[in-house]
Amino acid sequence: MWWQSPGIRALIELALAEDVGTGDHASEATLAPQRQGHAEVRAKSAAILAGAPLFAQIMQRVDPQITVELLAEEGQALEPGQVVLRLSGPLASILTAERTALNFLQRLSGIATQTRQYVLACQPHKARITDTRKTLPGYRALDKYAVRMGGGCNHRTALDAGILIKENHTVAAGSVARAVELARGVGSHLLRVEVEVEDLHDLEAALQAGAEIVLLDNMDLLQLQECVALNAGRAKLEASGNMTLLRVAAVAATGVDFISVGALTHSVIAADFSLRILANHVQ
Amino acid sequence: MWWQSPGIRALIELALAEDVGTGDHASEATLAPQRQGHAEVRAKSAAILAGAPLFAQIMQRVDPQITVELLAEEGQALEPGQVVLRLSGPLASILTAERTALNFLQRLSGIATQTRQYVLACQPHKARITDTRKTLPGYRALDKYAVRMGGGCNHRTALDAGILIKENHTVAAGSVARAVELARGVGSHLLRVEVEVEDLHDLEAALQAGAEIVLLDNMDLLQLQECVALNAGRAKLEASGNMTLLRVAAVAATGVDFISVGALTHSVIAADFSLRILANHVQ
Amino acid sequence: MWWQSPGIRALIELALAEDVGTGDHASEATLAPQRQGHAEVRAKSAAILAGAPLFAQIMQRVDPQITVELLAEEGQALEPGQVVLRLSGPLASILTAERTALNFLQRLSGIATQTRQYVLACQPHKARITDTRKTLPGYRALDKYAVRMGGGCNHRTALDAGILIKENHTVAAGSVARAVELARGVGSHLLRVEVEVEDLHDLEAALQAGAEIVLLDNMDLLQLQECVALNAGRAKLEASGNMTLLRVAAVAATGVDFISVGALTHSVIAADFSLRILANHVQ
Amino acid sequence: MWWQSPGIRALIELALAEDVGTGDHASEATLAPQRQGHAEVRAKSAAILAGAPLFAQIMQRVDPQITVELLAEEGQALEPGQVVLRLSGPLASILTAERTALNFLQRLSGIATQTRQYVLACQPHKARITDTRKTLPGYRALDKYAVRMGGGCNHRTALDAGILIKENHTVAAGSVARAVELARGVGSHLLRVEVEVEDLHDLEAALQAGAEIVLLDNMDLLQLQECVALNAGRAKLEASGNMTLLRVAAVAATGVDFISVGALTHSVIAADFSLRILANHVQ
Amino acid sequence: MWWQSPGIRALIELALAEDVGTGDHASEATLAPQRQGHAEVRAKSAAILAGAPLFAQIMQRVDPQITVELLAEEGQALEPGQVVLRLSGPLASILTAERTALNFLQRLSGIATQTRQYVLACQPHKARITDTRKTLPGYRALDKYAVRMGGGCNHRTALDAGILIKENHTVAAGSVARAVELARGVGSHLLRVEVEVEDLHDLEAALQAGAEIVLLDNMDLLQLQECVALNAGRAKLEASGNMTLLRVAAVAATGVDFISVGALTHSVIAADFSLRILANHVQ
Amino acid sequence: MWWQSPGIRALIELALAEDVGTGDHASEATLAPQRQGHAEVRAKSAAILAGAPLFAQIMQRVDPQITVELLAEEGQALEPGQVVLRLSGPLASILTAERTALNFLQRLSGIATQTRQYVLACQPHKARITDTRKTLPGYRALDKYAVRMGGGCNHRTALDAGILIKENHTVAAGSVARAVELARGVGSHLLRVEVEVEDLHDLEAALQAGAEIVLLDNMDLLQLQECVALNAGRAKLEASGNMTLLRVAAVAATGVDFISVGALTHSVIAADFSLRILANHVQ
Repeated sequence: MWWQSPGIRALIELALAEDVGTGDHASEATLAPQRQGHAEVRAKSAAILAGAPLFAQIMQRVDPQITVELLAEEGQALEPGQVVLRLSGPLASILTAERTALNFLQRLSGIATQTRQYVLACQPHKARITDTRKTLPGYRALDKYAVRMGGGCNHRTALDAGILIKENHTVAAGSVARAVELARGVGSHLLRVEVEVEDLHDLEAALQAGAEIVLLDNMDLLQLQECVALNAGRAKLEASGNMTLLRVAAVAATGVDFISVGALTHSVIAADFSLRILANHVQ
Repeated sequence: MWWQSPGIRALIELALAEDVGTGDHASEATLAPQRQGHAEVRAKSAAILAGAPLFAQIMQRVDPQITVELLAEEGQALEPGQVVLRLSGPLASILTAERTALNFLQRLSGIATQTRQYVLACQPHKARITDTRKTLPGYRALDKYAVRMGGGCNHRTALDAGILIKENHTVAAGSVARAVELARGVGSHLLRVEVEVEDLHDLEAALQAGAEIVLLDNMDLLQLQECVALNAGRAKLEASGNMTLLRVAAVAATGVDFISVGALTHSVIAADFSLRILANHVQ
Repeated sequence: MWWQSPGIRALIELALAEDVGTGDHASEATLAPQRQGHAEVRAKSAAILAGAPLFAQIMQRVDPQITVELLAEEGQALEPGQVVLRLSGPLASILTAERTALNFLQRLSGIATQTRQYVLACQPHKARITDTRKTLPGYRALDKYAVRMGGGCNHRTALDAGILIKENHTVAAGSVARAVELARGVGSHLLRVEVEVEDLHDLEAALQAGAEIVLLDNMDLLQLQECVALNAGRAKLEASGNMTLLRVAAVAATGVDFISVGALTHSVIAADFSLRILANHVQ
Repeated sequence: MWWQSPGIRALIELALAEDVGTGDHASEATLAPQRQGHAEVRAKSAAILAGAPLFAQIMQRVDPQITVELLAEEGQALEPGQVVLRLSGPLASILTAERTALNFLQRLSGIATQTRQYVLACQPHKARITDTRKTLPGYRALDKYAVRMGGGCNHRTALDAGILIKENHTVAAGSVARAVELARGVGSHLLRVEVEVEDLHDLEAALQAGAEIVLLDNMDLLQLQECVALNAGRAKLEASGNMTLLRVAAVAATGVDFISVGALTHSVIAADFSLRILANHVQ
Repeated sequence: MWWQSPGIRALIELALAEDVGTGDHASEATLAPQRQGHAEVRAKSAAILAGAPLFAQIMQRVDPQITVELLAEEGQALEPGQVVLRLSGPLASILTAERTALNFLQRLSGIATQTRQYVLACQPHKARITDTRKTLPGYRALDKYAVRMGGGCNHRTALDAGILIKENHTVAAGSVARAVELARGVGSHLLRVEVEVEDLHDLEAALQAGAEIVLLDNMDLLQLQECVALNAGRAKLEASGNMTLLRVAAVAATGVDFISVGALTHSVIAADFSLRILANHVQ
Repeated sequence: MWWQSPGIRALIELALAEDVGTGDHASEATLAPQRQGHAEVRAKSAAILAGAPLFAQIMQRVDPQITVELLAEEGQALEPGQVVLRLSGPLASILTAERTALNFLQRLSGIATQTRQYVLACQPHKARITDTRKTLPGYRALDKYAVRMGGGCNHRTALDAGILIKENHTVAAGSVARAVELARGVGSHLLRVEVEVEDLHDLEAALQAGAEIVLLDNMDLLQLQECVALNAGRAKLEASGNMTLLRVAAVAATGVDFISVGALTHSVIAADFSLRILANHVQ
């Protein structure tokens, strides 16, 4: 359903416009438009699947005659070689849409795969892995969806979908308490207030000001432990800054509630998929 | 100039729409709209710069009153801590545009940085590093620009900006020679013909068919050497498939003309930049 | 700044496209394009001002040579006859943009005016007036801005900017507690959970389930009072349903925290403004 | 058919973009995507129906699997409680589209309802109720359609779909006769010429200049009667300015041909409709 | 002003997107972005000028640093070799925009030139040359503007900007009189009613039905004369069908009021213009 | 397939928006929306068909209930009176889409028809007719498709789909050799290099510089012959400038490989088609 949202449709149109242009001349020249065939998409390495319905939507955008069968579920762990989609329809159309559809699938599954690694690294602690606004411009909804498929949870989706008081706001307002009060006056009552702090002193001020979540920015493990102790369950705590796969387990062990990881969406290794025409099925 | 192209403008609009929504309530609440200030953008680690003019364009799209000074050139190697942009204007506007502008800059510089590593790894051989169509959907022009800034060269920009005969086309046409002939009949005479091959036998057939460039797909070093010998300068040779930083030098040494690397644009580690309000300049 | 958001720009383009078409022939025929003049916009009745900067933006979209001077502040109470904007520039352009710009201004100020009436009616109680998602399609950000200018506060801006558990969700999930748990798993931790209830029994269940806000739907004054007593400060309470100007004071007196009023944005009486060319200034 | 026009499609996209964002988390969390059900839309008060096919179009835009049955005709008088639409399909999709679709339906039916009241008030006189260009920006075609469904007729749809000479044009041209001549030279011969006048003297000048319609602006009943007498059937007469339901009958009785009412579209009380899931039909 | 309309802006964006793509590599490679220069646009043959302000707008859309001086007026007769525009600014930008801007200018001036030929051929008769809806899709406003610059007048700009009863409507309604009555009930009172007829009998029926304009379709000169006589000034008469430059004078001599010519916009010989860099001014 | 490309879809939306507006009132008034019928499209004169599938797409965009049967193949020579399309569906919808769909068909078939004349004129020489970038803005892909249907071949589709060194670039770079080297460094290796020359001396320089194609600009027949002799098969030669139907055979006889003709797309005589409702099939 939300795959059909205006923003994602617009992104797909941009992608097809830039890739297809006036057409795929090699396919047009060698394949009659009515030539039908079958194809399948396989994972070439282990990955968490995300984006298969989007892949299907792009195929059908290029040619409504292409039918797509989904053979795996979103969020599922794939084995190398596993078939995830089966396609039938005009071969020239399938080849025209191939690259754009694969490029989306590879990014989203890449995000889900990396997220799952972070999620597993945090177990058995309660800390949940969350993303940031460091998504690729234009990909906010898609990137955050892929994080959910990997088992992570989403930080605010947009500037107006959460109230986050950063240092600049505190300085401008004069104090944390004043910044929270001002932001509360403007923001919806359906939004929680999160305050970013850099030390224990700021944490106490944020808690006094009524922060519901506190973002602990760039702290070491010792500082994080002290914050958890000082907080004593009053607010939710979110650790942030330089979260690598190597370090995240230790951070989770400090007892924080959330760990936000920018790399989930700003530094993505594409999951590897390939589309193969099934020659023996060409008609 | 081409930063102003319709496709890139549309992408920026999508990015602002998804991030800004009905506004940045924390900034609105704490910063009067007329409050002026200064800020600077620094590289937090070594990187090749790409995208600074785009950063400036986004700032001015959000608020034409923001002025931006570029302090480094595109393609330049940055040292950690180096200041690359200086901004002046309404602080609330700068904070509103910050995340979107940084997200673009970090991706493009990440691509340029990685490309430069591949380019350096190939020296002193003649092989040039080239990208693929595995760019992020919607980012084709931007991703390929960043590759150029890193010192790489661009493969075709779109399906219709080059004639690439793949295995599927050869099978459909009956032979390489027939596929080339058919594609020549449709494609512009300003486009070269490239043929993808998987072994020496195919290479000879492609050369006979008049291929101007031959893509050597997924070959090992020995095969590549044999192809270079067989080709004897008749066509340009492009090696492709599983190109890692570790392997690329050895591939270059085989004497191929081009090495295409999908990871340049499908698996990008963001370059790290930060924007800091210069507190002592707030007016 | 957010006046420049992509969604609002797109709405202005739609409005100009539908109104201007191939041009205003009567103005073109009688006014030379270079003919300059002055004009002013006056309130014809008492109103709360909202939308004057948008009025200016539309004028300048039609012709960048039009200059606009704002003579009153957003949210200010205007007296009948008060001048709120002064314009200079090509007269034909001013007349071309007049209707579209006025239509926006009249709606936004109409919303602000009505909101202010509700806000005043609630004093001196703590209850705040809030809007709903019953905004005009395409006008979400503008309508909600006008509510703020009238002194109201905003409910969630979009489906994904707040978690509201309605009866349908509770039925589908099996219980309020389960619905809250499921929604928490998907929604951002920056969002509060609001639960809609219809009686005291549901209220207690919602509070047990961890609702941070409870929406009291279509209750009479007695029920509202009982809810306030039962809640005892545990969650924020929002009264909703059939809120008229006559009834809102009594609702506020029950002690609820928020009163949401759909009519603020779905049934708007336009504030009356007129644009007049200052004949003695025509050059 | 014209429901599918580019402008209306664009408005629907804007509306869905602003409301749905990255999705309806409460519905997603509690309702499996494949869960089917039925729902119905009822009028909660007496109203003239307008916009039901648009409601259906929005539902199917969000999810093509939703089927919609129309149970009442456009322009029909609805009784309180009357069912106007019946829906079947994925429940999560129905809930996602609900608010946007209802918001359109409520505005259009609100306009039709109010128009019908004005039309009835004019009977048995010949005067027809007509709208103005004071439609909501972006809603021109929809608002004017709703006026027709209410029994009113449409004034010009855009600046270029009719030639209306206002005071500013007369002043600029030097005389009414000259303004009409100039406008005739530019405008299509398929357009009639209407001239706005403020007194009897102007009326005679307009008639002499060949006006086919004369707009009598802000006149009292006595002036209108005198104009009807002076005109003696030469042109069509349109009364305009401060038309309330209380006054419109008396204006119609003066014998004018048209009465234009800005409030039809600038001050609309939403008609009240509700969508209810039919619990006993959930599968 | 109307050059800035949303539809024309969108067309320009499409044009730049399709032509410029990822940039003009030859210009980028040889011309530094900051290299300034001058250029001029000359008519290469006699023509009526139309579209010079649009040419300027496109140049400035590509690069706001380009300044454009207009040296001739719209609608002016140009001599071969006459300079119509002078440009200064970044040379690479001028070359990038050149083709798109010239393509527009050549079409619009081609239309104006051909229209002028038809207008001159009709003198000294009263008949005015008018266009049709056979404009190029997407170019309606531009094509009709060019007709005006050539001295022609515009038929309806869109389906809803005029009421034209064709044979299909008459057949469907049962009679001309009924078709006019039905159309009058739906269409704005600011629109005249035109009826298409094919013989004298139909003409009389149309006049009886209250047609304000009658379109005489595909008649020979004798029929046209008979129609003019029968009409006796009751309605305006418009001759249509197979109007060539050779035939139009004789048609005008029959006494019809309008002659509509589809070829004005559907069969256009481009006026020839060239842009030349002034080498001695390159800096 | 590529008929569905984003650019062409956008152009169709612009065309429908400008033509249909708020609807076709005469059709709405006289034809019930559900009234079904048949229609056919005939060529009124001999022509080469191009654009019939686009015609079908536009019909179905306006109303998906319209079915279209294609009775002739793209590129086929049509006889006067030949039926090319048969339509069934709601009559009001067919009439609404008629003008826009015909306008496209008439242009594309006009281009194909003229191209075919040029192609035939060149036989039996090897020279191929090619188009230029003088296509109508927004119509690049459509115009070039029509050229192919006429038997011509396409020059570069966009600035970045071919490297063409013009005089301005040579001057800026200092020499042809330097310009080619610089452009090669920026452009994709899938693009050939073409150099524009004006005399024999330049031709030799271009060949030395490695030009793969040489554009011989505005040369007379003697010069062209000398160029063919000097070239001696080293590069492909393209003659350009003032190519009329009368002259093109002689140019082909000189032995050049390509002849580019701007008039193919900048000066198009519409092919004549008409749509007729089949009265005896109206239901």
